Amino acid sequence: MNLRIFDRLESEVRGYIRSFPTIFTKARGAMLWDEDGNRYIDFFAGAGTLNYGHNEPGMKARLLEYLEHDGVVHGLDMATSAKKDFLETFERVILQPRHMRYKVQFPGPTGTNAVEAALKLARQVKGRTNIIAFTNAFHGVTSGALATTGNEKFRSAAGQPLANVQFVPYDGYLEGVDTTELLERMLSDKSSGLDLPAAVIIETVQGEGGVNTARFEWLQRLESICRRHDVLLIVDDIQVGCGRTGTFFSFERAGVSPDIVTLSKSLSGFGLPMSLVLMKPELDIWRPSAHNGTFRGNNLAFVTAREALLRYWTTDDFAREVERKGKMMRLWIEHIASAYPSGQFQARGRGMIQGLASRVAGLPNKIAAAAFKHGVVVETSGAEDDVIKLLPPLTIDTELLADGLYLLEQCVAETLGVRLATSSNVRTLRKTAGGGR
Amino acid sequence: MNLRIFDRLESEVRGYIRSFPTIFTKARGAMLWDEDGNRYIDFFAGAGTLNYGHNEPGMKARLLEYLEHDGVVHGLDMATSAKKDFLETFERVILQPRHMRYKVQFPGPTGTNAVEAALKLARQVKGRTNIIAFTNAFHGVTSGALATTGNEKFRSAAGQPLANVQFVPYDGYLEGVDTTELLERMLSDKSSGLDLPAAVIIETVQGEGGVNTARFEWLQRLESICRRHDVLLIVDDIQVGCGRTGTFFSFERAGVSPDIVTLSKSLSGFGLPMSLVLMKPELDIWRPSAHNGTFRGNNLAFVTAREALLRYWTTDDFAREVERKGKMMRLWIEHIASAYPSGQFQARGRGMIQGLASRVAGLPNKIAAAAFKHGVVVETSGAEDDVIKLLPPLTIDTELLADGLYLLEQCVAETLGVRLATSSNVRTLRKTAGGGR
Amino acid sequence: MNLRIFDRLESEVRGYIRSFPTIFTKARGAMLWDEDGNRYIDFFAGAGTLNYGHNEPGMKARLLEYLEHDGVVHGLDMATSAKKDFLETFERVILQPRHMRYKVQFPGPTGTNAVEAALKLARQVKGRTNIIAFTNAFHGVTSGALATTGNEKFRSAAGQPLANVQFVPYDGYLEGVDTTELLERMLSDKSSGLDLPAAVIIETVQGEGGVNTARFEWLQRLESICRRHDVLLIVDDIQVGCGRTGTFFSFERAGVSPDIVTLSKSLSGFGLPMSLVLMKPELDIWRPSAHNGTFRGNNLAFVTAREALLRYWTTDDFAREVERKGKMMRLWIEHIASAYPSGQFQARGRGMIQGLASRVAGLPNKIAAAAFKHGVVVETSGAEDDVIKLLPPLTIDTELLADGLYLLEQCVAETLGVRLATSSNVRTLRKTAGGGR
Amino acid sequence: MNLRIFDRLESEVRGYIRSFPTIFTKARGAMLWDEDGNRYIDFFAGAGTLNYGHNEPGMKARLLEYLEHDGVVHGLDMATSAKKDFLETFERVILQPRHMRYKVQFPGPTGTNAVEAALKLARQVKGRTNIIAFTNAFHGVTSGALATTGNEKFRSAAGQPLANVQFVPYDGYLEGVDTTELLERMLSDKSSGLDLPAAVIIETVQGEGGVNTARFEWLQRLESICRRHDVLLIVDDIQVGCGRTGTFFSFERAGVSPDIVTLSKSLSGFGLPMSLVLMKPELDIWRPSAHNGTFRGNNLAFVTAREALLRYWTTDDFAREVERKGKMMRLWIEHIASAYPSGQFQARGRGMIQGLASRVAGLPNKIAAAAFKHGVVVETSGAEDDVIKLLPPLTIDTELLADGLYLLEQCVAETLGVRLATSSNVRTLRKTAGGGR
Repeated sequence: MNLRIFDRLESEVRGYIRSFPTIFTKARGAMLWDEDGNRYIDFFAGAGTLNYGHNEPGMKARLLEYLEHDGVVHGLDMATSAKKDFLETFERVILQPRHMRYKVQFPGPTGTNAVEAALKLARQVKGRTNIIAFTNAFHGVTSGALATTGNEKFRSAAGQPLANVQFVPYDGYLEGVDTTELLERMLSDKSSGLDLPAAVIIETVQGEGGVNTARFEWLQRLESICRRHDVLLIVDDIQVGCGRTGTFFSFERAGVSPDIVTLSKSLSGFGLPMSLVLMKPELDIWRPSAHNGTFRGNNLAFVTAREALLRYWTTDDFAREVERKGKMMRLWIEHIASAYPSGQFQARGRGMIQGLASRVAGLPNKIAAAAFKHGVVVETSGAEDDVIKLLPPLTIDTELLADGLYLLEQCVAETLGVRLATSSNVRTLRKTAGGGR
Repeated sequence: MNLRIFDRLESEVRGYIRSFPTIFTKARGAMLWDEDGNRYIDFFAGAGTLNYGHNEPGMKARLLEYLEHDGVVHGLDMATSAKKDFLETFERVILQPRHMRYKVQFPGPTGTNAVEAALKLARQVKGRTNIIAFTNAFHGVTSGALATTGNEKFRSAAGQPLANVQFVPYDGYLEGVDTTELLERMLSDKSSGLDLPAAVIIETVQGEGGVNTARFEWLQRLESICRRHDVLLIVDDIQVGCGRTGTFFSFERAGVSPDIVTLSKSLSGFGLPMSLVLMKPELDIWRPSAHNGTFRGNNLAFVTAREALLRYWTTDDFAREVERKGKMMRLWIEHIASAYPSGQFQARGRGMIQGLASRVAGLPNKIAAAAFKHGVVVETSGAEDDVIKLLPPLTIDTELLADGLYLLEQCVAETLGVRLATSSNVRTLRKTAGGGR
Repeated sequence: MNLRIFDRLESEVRGYIRSFPTIFTKARGAMLWDEDGNRYIDFFAGAGTLNYGHNEPGMKARLLEYLEHDGVVHGLDMATSAKKDFLETFERVILQPRHMRYKVQFPGPTGTNAVEAALKLARQVKGRTNIIAFTNAFHGVTSGALATTGNEKFRSAAGQPLANVQFVPYDGYLEGVDTTELLERMLSDKSSGLDLPAAVIIETVQGEGGVNTARFEWLQRLESICRRHDVLLIVDDIQVGCGRTGTFFSFERAGVSPDIVTLSKSLSGFGLPMSLVLMKPELDIWRPSAHNGTFRGNNLAFVTAREALLRYWTTDDFAREVERKGKMMRLWIEHIASAYPSGQFQARGRGMIQGLASRVAGLPNKIAAAAFKHGVVVETSGAEDDVIKLLPPLTIDTELLADGLYLLEQCVAETLGVRLATSSNVRTLRKTAGGGR
Repeated sequence: MNLRIFDRLESEVRGYIRSFPTIFTKARGAMLWDEDGNRYIDFFAGAGTLNYGHNEPGMKARLLEYLEHDGVVHGLDMATSAKKDFLETFERVILQPRHMRYKVQFPGPTGTNAVEAALKLARQVKGRTNIIAFTNAFHGVTSGALATTGNEKFRSAAGQPLANVQFVPYDGYLEGVDTTELLERMLSDKSSGLDLPAAVIIETVQGEGGVNTARFEWLQRLESICRRHDVLLIVDDIQVGCGRTGTFFSFERAGVSPDIVTLSKSLSGFGLPMSLVLMKPELDIWRPSAHNGTFRGNNLAFVTAREALLRYWTTDDFAREVERKGKMMRLWIEHIASAYPSGQFQARGRGMIQGLASRVAGLPNKIAAAAFKHGVVVETSGAEDDVIKLLPPLTIDTELLADGLYLLEQCVAETLGVRLATSSNVRTLRKTAGGGR
């Protein structure tokens, strides 16, 4: 393993290479291999980009086929057969069964670009500049999206003040306080200083912000505040959409109906850059070409994205599988929290995004570093890196998930300097969570 | 051809599908085919993204190979063999022969993201918020880049004021005035109202803005103004880098040494999303992860990008070929301008980006529409769509280029309602420009 | 009474002339007379500008004297004997007895200018752009001050977004919540989205915002949050300083030590334009002339301001008198609140700024209109004009205060359509509140 | 003379006290006296505030009268007899004879407040945020006005970026270039990056910026550009209005008709804080109270302002007198420029604002310092203090003006270390300029 070219040539801004200092050469499903032939269980999944695992064979087959026939790879936003097929499938498999009426924008292939487009559209529609974002939010780092991102590390890099966004507390931010009450009070009060916003932008689970979860009833209250004050509701489903919490959209069970939705990360299914903005038809006041971009039409991504929908979303089976494995992950976390009190752990999450939060400063990073040595790739999140974020591919085999959790528990025990808890048989958890393949 | 799904489902923001209303199914080199089997000569090249043509066989071979062996497709900015190989090749083939000392940032896979990163870095380095951009500039549409983009169509879509950028006139903007004089005067005058900027950002040829070309000596004067006032010089080489004007970087012959360079579009060589920021090593004050993004590591793009460098940039042959074909294009334009006076045409451009400007309102769009009917894909640019922008793949076969130009001339004549000029034998132009394949 | 010239020539922006539609010709102490010889009791006092009443004879004498001797009226910020005398007296009578170490800036003669200077200084000192202001705050309407003012009426007139200020809830804004906890949480959380501010700006009693009062212990907590996070504390004492709450500065009894204090309104004592910024000496990093203004040196104001200090602030007598009369006003309000339940009244205030809040929409404006007809000038405040703000000159004679309150009670009863409460003998209240002139 | 209290207590921001380090005690007409009995000729006039001199006896008489009768000194913007009388006189003496239809706003008593109100109104009327200002402009230092002020000394004190204003070159900024051409080009070009502004704000002579003078035909071209692009024209006549250039408004002879005019400084005639915004009636879309302020109603200023109008503007005599004395000043400057070549002097100005510019760095400040020692108060202006700005009261006696100019010439000669030019008999100049009192 030789990282010298990176040290010499790549900017100091590089990140994950520091946490996972090796050269990866191959990947399949929930497994990664490096140059030296080491194998890793992937509990990270490209920060939520690889919900269907690496190099899923079905999508790969379609991709090779497309390339071999000289399909159009790049065509800006010209119509191609790949794009047409994707649109038709997305309408038939995702929108129609959910009775959703949305128009689709291809804003450029990254999540941050989708957020930029969503914010622009909201501001244009309402003719207002202000946007409300939430504490600990992450929506991207291009300047418009960055203004809605809470973390000082990203914000201070802007080199200029980030304007026209006001932050209010997310669900659970202040113990014992329903934070929608403050928002309602400030919006109702014409002298609060909170300018009436064009939109509220929210993640139903804050992945980057520390696996904070908004309760469904809280989301409902938020939606009704938006309606009452004529404010658009934008759900940024980039990290926890595409099935991460069980349903395709993370807000389905909450029963809310966002005006605008952003999707990216696992949308292509294969790790290829792609993103979408969904908007209620009546909001589609875009002038032609008013938001452009060279890579709006990443046709390879359209090919795999379509295949992902066909393969995983035509029945409910996949959603049930995610639920089952999510339950297993949760049980494991609760076990850790009760069996290792010195870790001062706490459980967070929904579906297959689960966080093991700790009040012991620095502990999560130590556990994650130990995990890497033991062959598990997992990252921390939260303002102070205070949460281990478990984000395996949704398609991970139950056995492998159990193996990974068991390895992680070993790292927890080792890092805390205590014995492995006797009750820690992850396979037991699996059974409790229900059968599986 | 059935575009109903696009009309029904895709947002009004869609653009090129309106200019080129068909469904493309296949592409190779400088040719595109649609659903109905029609063939098109591509004088557009993905707005400069396909300098090496569609589905270049060498790159395709590498891509298929990589996919077949389950190479890592997505790994954020973890180290992969594909990334390592790209970095080594970029250093060896591009930087070292040019004696360039730059560090490399992968800011996300789009040009606008590269511009965002460049502006952030410049502002951080200098501790100043202001940036100088030029009339008719285009640098992208995410909010930070958008603030440096001149076109009202994009700017007004922001829905908020675009701050901390001041526009000054580009080379040739005012007849008879050396516009660097105004810049120098305003920067020297402490009471001019022009806050000392962190950086100047410039395209050496403004593709989107109407194929405006900055003279080399003007660029040199701009560079020395930057040095004198301790201002960084950013060259946005996204559209005209990667060989478009002949040399790999568009500023090589001008002899200027930008502090920061942005690259994207043709960088991957295959139309895949990828971008880079190059910065002088002493400017690399980034904190780890301070600019992140899910698709920084588009490994498929790294594979083809490396192959493109190996295939086209290890000798000077390709540069000479571009020069020769660029000359041929220029001769054609000059011929058109003199042979069709009623079109009030004017020639613009450098290398293989050439613009046929017209003072007759609406004429360029009419010619481009006629061209599409005759099987040539070409777009217009400029604030008033007043320029036909010729942007064929650099690898286009001379015969095909000649065919395309001949077809275009027919469209010019037809649109103007005049006879084809007798002297208009494009093959003659080719000979004048020198032999070649 | 003929207001036609105002209707014809003065802009629609005019305000108080609409509430008090008559032409005033003469004023003395707490009384005003109009063209038709009607007399009014002044419970408004120039919105807190006339703490010592109209045309106070002592100050008037000094003023006439100064004018008769051709003292310098205008001299920008050149040194004059009037300015020198004021500075010496301010130091001796106000700063030294309170052991306050402040430097003094004359920022222009208006409160909003003082706020502008305070905010600029804070931002320069800390090198940060963000400022924290509070819900319902009013700090002026020039753009910098306006950004810290909560009311939508003023904010929307800006015609541009108001940047670099974040609003947080004032004391009592959310029932049952100590709002400093939210502030502390957001400042401690590096991912809250609340950029570390240069300063917090606060009124200890929000006059314009509805006579909201911050508890002393809450102010102390706010101060310690500021210290902990290296944030400056600015107290805007423009409306409730100069003795309005009893002490010269409104924050004296809270025991807090602001880094910057703004004073204006009653500072000149005579209704003449004048303002000051006080700053801790170590913060005085101003470059010479960096904040200028034509009317920094309103020498007539310096003459009367000095006289006001000499006349009212060399002993504690005046403070005690304010306390006594404030108590009387408070008792009256509490009497009203309990005797007229249909008004849904509530008491607010401190010292001689007392508010009679009502939950009945529109009621306060009706009472104020009735009062004007009965010869009492009083205004409403709050986002919805939901509070009658009692702001008589501090020097008002006890009898006249009693008369005014009695008249006001008649208006309350009349507006509510109920009988005068039998217990409503204001003179009794006066006795309860302690003797006096 | 003892300035210790200022050194100890006044902020470092103090300015003129540094140029004129003495304590002034008395002033009359164009003369000032200090504590030590020294007499000074005032060629500064409160930076244009004392056009009618210090303590003009007629105004003083009215002021004393008003005070003695307990006229209302402060009443916010309630109607008073003093305000009514002023409005009627302003309409009759100023507006009607000039056939001007304007409504009048009292925005607060300072120039910067008038500019703030004007900019707010323009932005509201047009629904656009951008404003165009000119190189070397000065419009005040509160944040909104500051954004239109060019000088870095003031701008950098803001501590935050100054947004929504774009600077373009003033008349004469680039030799040989008609700078309105650049403005026209950028406004016509939809891709110039210059967002369509709500308004252009301009001084017809830039006092603070170095006595730069816009030619009448240039102003006319500017006006027609504004009309063509639906942009408002704001003339800031704060420093050069009220007769400074001869006519009451500085733009009268140019024949332009601004949409909005700001007045302050000499408006009260007596050095008292007062300002006005004039707006065409159709622009008066202000909501009641949307721009407020405690000192909008400085009634003492209304009393003297009315008297000034009655005394100086009911006939043309005063305008002619200004013209005559302005000519005398100009001849003197031209004499200096030709007689003292080593000073590299150049003449600038219009009417009785005349500038003696010098290319010798530091020379103007040295001459001004010498002048103070010789009993002449005069200041420098321009980005580099490169201009001696002559700004005597318009009412200055011809003899005294001649004396002052003679003294100044002595300072010029002395500072340059050369002999007094033989032709330098200022009294001769006076005669050349025509007779007078």
